[in-house]
Amino acid sequence: MSTVRVELGDRAYSISIAPGLLGRADSYAACANPRGSALIVSNTTVAPLYADALEAALRPHFARVLRCVLPDGEAYKDWATLNQVFEALLRAQCDRRTTLFALGGGVIGDMTGFAAACYMRGVPFVQVPTTLLAQVDSSVGGKTAINHALGKNMIGAFHQPRLVVADVETLRSLPAREISAGLAEVIKHGAIADAGFFAWLETHIDALRALEPQALAEAVQRCCAIKAEVVARDETESGPRALLNFGHTFGHAIEAGMGYGAWLHGEAVGAGMVVAADVSVRLGLLDATHAQRLRELVRRAGLPVTLPSLPLRSYAEWMRVDKKNEGGEVRYVLLDGLGRALLRGAPDAVVDASLRAHGAPD
Amino acid sequence: MSTVRVELGDRAYSISIAPGLLGRADSYAACANPRGSALIVSNTTVAPLYADALEAALRPHFARVLRCVLPDGEAYKDWATLNQVFEALLRAQCDRRTTLFALGGGVIGDMTGFAAACYMRGVPFVQVPTTLLAQVDSSVGGKTAINHALGKNMIGAFHQPRLVVADVETLRSLPAREISAGLAEVIKHGAIADAGFFAWLETHIDALRALEPQALAEAVQRCCAIKAEVVARDETESGPRALLNFGHTFGHAIEAGMGYGAWLHGEAVGAGMVVAADVSVRLGLLDATHAQRLRELVRRAGLPVTLPSLPLRSYAEWMRVDKKNEGGEVRYVLLDGLGRALLRGAPDAVVDASLRAHGAPD
Repeated sequence: MSTVRVELGDRAYSISIAPGLLGRADSYAACANPRGSALIVSNTTVAPLYADALEAALRPHFARVLRCVLPDGEAYKDWATLNQVFEALLRAQCDRRTTLFALGGGVIGDMTGFAAACYMRGVPFVQVPTTLLAQVDSSVGGKTAINHALGKNMIGAFHQPRLVVADVETLRSLPAREISAGLAEVIKHGAIADAGFFAWLETHIDALRALEPQALAEAVQRCCAIKAEVVARDETESGPRALLNFGHTFGHAIEAGMGYGAWLHGEAVGAGMVVAADVSVRLGLLDATHAQRLRELVRRAGLPVTLPSLPLRSYAEWMRVDKKNEGGEVRYVLLDGLGRALLRGAPDAVVDASLRAHGAPD
Repeated sequence: MSTVRVELGDRAYSISIAPGLLGRADSYAACANPRGSALIVSNTTVAPLYADALEAALRPHFARVLRCVLPDGEAYKDWATLNQVFEALLRAQCDRRTTLFALGGGVIGDMTGFAAACYMRGVPFVQVPTTLLAQVDSSVGGKTAINHALGKNMIGAFHQPRLVVADVETLRSLPAREISAGLAEVIKHGAIADAGFFAWLETHIDALRALEPQALAEAVQRCCAIKAEVVARDETESGPRALLNFGHTFGHAIEAGMGYGAWLHGEAVGAGMVVAADVSVRLGLLDATHAQRLRELVRRAGLPVTLPSLPLRSYAEWMRVDKKNEGGEVRYVLLDGLGRALLRGAPDAVVDASLRAHGAPD
């Protein structure tokens, strides 16, 4: 088992990574509360696969273990669905000695974390991510949120988990499309922070798509280590943490413009990274050959490298409400080399040219 | 002007108390953000009285000043109304450089604070309380929340304001019923923490009801000083802070049982304190003469000292979901002397006897 520590003072926690962790009681010893309740929050796809095993593993550590099963999909990442978690907690008369367990992908993790942040003004939660995207990215760092009709992840909280248990065996139940979506975030970590890891990915991308366990564990561990370091330096995204949003400004615009759920988050981020790299080239920040290597890696991961048929003005509209913006100016995460990123504005004409070059109609 | 400091490290802030502060630009210098936006959140009762003056005072400090006016009343302290704040922020494309201003009473303060806690995972906010209840209690300490159909203040966050500006002149526009409701929280501070202040109230209660400015400023200052000290010792209510809920366990049950808005919060707390003091006497913690002095002060403040016609089982039901509970046991704030409080369980039979003695039918 490998362990990555997220150093955040009194909110520090560990990420455990290995096959088989999910169903083992000792994986959860660090968050035990024998007089408290545990609520497993999951969805209709994941709960049938793993909720029984998780419940059995938690039973030695809590007075009771409850479940709340939500509908599956980004389309349900809203207040109405979040309220189902509050209803479950209140109907079971759960008090502040309750720990929430997020069993699922990024949507479940974000919603469960936000529910934990708000319930009685804050109870602990634990991430048990079962998708590649959640294991390498969303389960680490304490960003929790729901979507608003007017913008993605606009309503949320920074609320750190007490523990992250990443069982890479669960990835074997994922459809290929979900694996590809998760690889977008894996590639992102290399592109913004670690050229060596990026090169490693170029030689291991096929092994990852084939779900080779050693390769998966290595990729999860390296991504978590990169993310843990960034988060420790900037918990609330006032500085370097924003760089983790590489590909996400365009990606969010794709997701919102197409209607949440049409493209997977990772698919949108994949195409978004390709466009952001192209903007970087047009601004003279990045070699065209490096942008080409990124595009090729995204393609080999099974991700789209061209945009959907959303008109240009749709991007402008959605990007104006991005959380990274300041004083009305849209700010982009761009590359100034493989493994190096920065946050800055870009002229509309350059951004439009990149969007057009990747298939966005006027 | 008197100033009370809330010592919370990097979240420390000041409470300014004086007549006339609301409309003065220098009251807000400490939270200026010339490149950011200000959003004044108020309600249909308070906005017509003070929003213009506040807007004029904020204009020198912000790039733009916006408004969001909500319906008035505890009945609107819910998600649907909170969402109006998010809509206003998103439609105006407000980014993280936005400061929210809560202009109104406790409901506006709680909702605005929670909106600030959640919008883009957290933006700053300032309390400009215009009711006695908000000035002496709810605007200080960072407890923010909305109600849930299954429980009051169940969904919220600890999110400290950057500044509290308490203009006691605004209290002159309050109906007598609201002044009485605010006095419940004033009496509470004396009862749980300061026997000298309690005695001062016994001689000044008529001056306070008559809105005598010196008396009001003194009462606000002493309450804020007590509350600031408790909050500094226990920001997230894991210990002594729970004592500030004296009268609130029964009070919340009254408010919830009658339907939010039927009784004012302070009225429910007034009757709730009388019952809690009676429970304290029955358990041998408090002299009957002290309970009698409390009852008399509550009565002279213009507050109810008997319960509404809610059946006993209704109290049991609502109190079971109280946030102070642990491991399923209801915990009460009781007095073991005037100016001294403690948190503990109590036998159902004793609680029921007190409820019956104060008018609750079986």
